Amino acid sequence: MAALDEAFAAAAASGIRQDRVSANGLRINVARFGRGRPLLLLHGWPEFWLVWRPIMERLGGDFELIAPDLRGCGDTGKPFPEPDSTATAERHSDDMFALMDALGIEQFGVVGGDLGAYVAQAMSHRTPTRLWGTFYFCTPYPGLGSRYGQPSHLIEVWYQYFQQLPWAAELVGSSRDACRIYLRHFLDHWSGDNPSVFADLLEAYVDNFMKPGNIQGGFDWYLSSAPTRRLWLEGKLPPKPPITVPTRFLWGQRDPLIPPEWSDRLGEYWSDYSIGFADAGHYVHAEIPDVAAREIRTFFNRIKAKSS
Amino acid sequence: MAALDEAFAAAAASGIRQDRVSANGLRINVARFGRGRPLLLLHGWPEFWLVWRPIMERLGGDFELIAPDLRGCGDTGKPFPEPDSTATAERHSDDMFALMDALGIEQFGVVGGDLGAYVAQAMSHRTPTRLWGTFYFCTPYPGLGSRYGQPSHLIEVWYQYFQQLPWAAELVGSSRDACRIYLRHFLDHWSGDNPSVFADLLEAYVDNFMKPGNIQGGFDWYLSSAPTRRLWLEGKLPPKPPITVPTRFLWGQRDPLIPPEWSDRLGEYWSDYSIGFADAGHYVHAEIPDVAAREIRTFFNRIKAKSS
Repeated sequence: MAALDEAFAAAAASGIRQDRVSANGLRINVARFGRGRPLLLLHGWPEFWLVWRPIMERLGGDFELIAPDLRGCGDTGKPFPEPDSTATAERHSDDMFALMDALGIEQFGVVGGDLGAYVAQAMSHRTPTRLWGTFYFCTPYPGLGSRYGQPSHLIEVWYQYFQQLPWAAELVGSSRDACRIYLRHFLDHWSGDNPSVFADLLEAYVDNFMKPGNIQGGFDWYLSSAPTRRLWLEGKLPPKPPITVPTRFLWGQRDPLIPPEWSDRLGEYWSDYSIGFADAGHYVHAEIPDVAAREIRTFFNRIKAKSS
Repeated sequence: MAALDEAFAAAAASGIRQDRVSANGLRINVARFGRGRPLLLLHGWPEFWLVWRPIMERLGGDFELIAPDLRGCGDTGKPFPEPDSTATAERHSDDMFALMDALGIEQFGVVGGDLGAYVAQAMSHRTPTRLWGTFYFCTPYPGLGSRYGQPSHLIEVWYQYFQQLPWAAELVGSSRDACRIYLRHFLDHWSGDNPSVFADLLEAYVDNFMKPGNIQGGFDWYLSSAPTRRLWLEGKLPPKPPITVPTRFLWGQRDPLIPPEWSDRLGEYWSDYSIGFADAGHYVHAEIPDVAAREIRTFFNRIKAKSS
């Protein structure tokens, strides 16, 4: 646990505090930092709140940054030790609104990627009036369609199926070495095959995922989202009205999982958005935090909070 | 190694002998038993020659049974310790013809499933005149087409992509426990989620795959076949003339990997074939060896050897 403890201690030394907040029947671990208009930071998989530390430290002078561990992840509760197929984007969305209720925050901005981007979309459909803006990195969205399962892309998305299997967490967690081999792939490959991005954090990530329930807790998302993902790929997802929340995308040009050209259908799903591209892979927020923080600040400063 | 040693000792006590034969630059381990017209038995993944023991013991009075470990598998050589993308069906086919040359056998029948079925198809295209018949269980063939990668089937075929990754063997071989968890899935699930079929052999299989190079040696097939598989799924595989070798299929009705209804296009790829269905999963030869042995005997006894 040494590496994770050290990372937490360093974050605490920067002024980032972690609290447990009861919300939606869950004990949610949430890291907080800074003062200003609130921004909710939603991590992806295989991440937890710590991935936001570079962004938090850069934006703490402008915003109140709220970085929870999502259901099943990090130090948030894992109510189902067995595989749980109910951890859908809608349930995560309920968790997040309840968290913000518990913190007494009515309106806020949301920043997310990967799993966090699914959650932000669900929040945008559920109660858009509470969101004054959403900012996305790597964004899985229904417009990916059948491309997300096309033959040439199966070498990228196999894990979405493997991670549904009831023994997958047992395999990945069978030893610290196994966990490291597995995580290292997703951290390095999605950073554009750049092992330097997460090199200093790899052992802390292994510490986090070797905590009881954390591997399965992350895999629960893939189990829970499987029916919806299949409908995407089959082109059978019931249409929803476009999201009206003001939105900015900052897409990693070298993201191997969701290549930038697949942003071509965003206009069918968002009515008020702009997009930029960044010289990064999947983890724009971790790979180039200076650029990411600047873009987040610029976007949210342009939006006048609806409540102000 | 105890379980595998015991299994080999029991096979030896039945009269099955194992020899090393040099062929095509490889030291091929080959199990042999019985007298009569020669039948070459081609195992799949995750198998090795031992899977054929029940068939060999049932047919030894009628045929000379020759069950090699394919390149990279079992106790056959692993010339490439690193991932090897050259272990194609054509190369395995060359290995097998060279093995039969070394054994002084000109004409023979072939029985195979899974990887062995790919090899049998390659042999049928290369030198059909040497084969007096082919008998297939679970048969991946180009007529599966895009169905093999359709959204509802990705939960079955993810491993074909995972196993291409350069760290996959390291993960699966990271401990004996990891190897067991992984193998057990394929042995049990493909037997129609019946854990009793391979229960007594599971530790022997773990012993086999934990031998240096054997996990990667099996995964090499998925790396080597990836370009061809992608062409299948994309419907772009250059057509070949139908196979003319007399052929029988005995398809497991409960095979989750290649369901029996996907045998519907066999007629485009074989000009002289018949098909039957068996109450089994992927491993007809291991699940119901009495039925499988009877069908093999009946089929090959009906075929008059071309050389006789």
